[in-house]
Amino acid sequence: MSMLVIVCYDVSTESSAGRRRLRRVAKVCESMGQRVQKSVFECRLDLAKFEALERRLLREVDLDEDGLRFYRVSGRYELSVTQHGRFRATDFEDGSLVV
Amino acid sequence: MSMLVIVCYDVSTESSAGRRRLRRVAKVCESMGQRVQKSVFECRLDLAKFEALERRLLREVDLDEDGLRFYRVSGRYELSVTQHGRFRATDFEDGSLVV
Repeated sequence: MSMLVIVCYDVSTESSAGRRRLRRVAKVCESMGQRVQKSVFECRLDLAKFEALERRLLREVDLDEDGLRFYRVSGRYELSVTQHGRFRATDFEDGSLVV
Repeated sequence: MSMLVIVCYDVSTESSAGRRRLRRVAKVCESMGQRVQKSVFECRLDLAKFEALERRLLREVDLDEDGLRFYRVSGRYELSVTQHGRFRATDFEDGSLVV
């Protein structure tokens, strides 16, 4: 059974180490879903894939410094997603802006 | 009928104007829910209250610079929330860290 998974990652991108971690977290999440904000990712996964994602992300983050929050929604839910303003993910590889 | 509302706010806090906007967004959201990450807030609201929240937030943000994303979940849903690492909200009033 597929779930909606929202991953929110809280890291300071003021340090280069933080930016590096965010880049890695984004890469893992993007392999299983999509980036919707700088530090928010959306995936639709079954439980096994969610557990794999969680395991992989826990290897990338620094739990003393960062926060990682997962929302898993399943069942007979109704979902409404609204976006205002811009989606702007910084590409920390080269410092340029990806809009 | 009450919904789960997740508000994700994407703003650069590298500028003092961005920090000011985040502070104001947090203040509005905290009056209707709780802060769970630096830029993520959770509320349980009915539709009228959600619309009031959305209206108030749209007055605070800069849509040319920021992104504001709302998830509304209702119906017969099952929800699982998992947090790893720390919750660390910076208090931009005085620059200190609120853990």
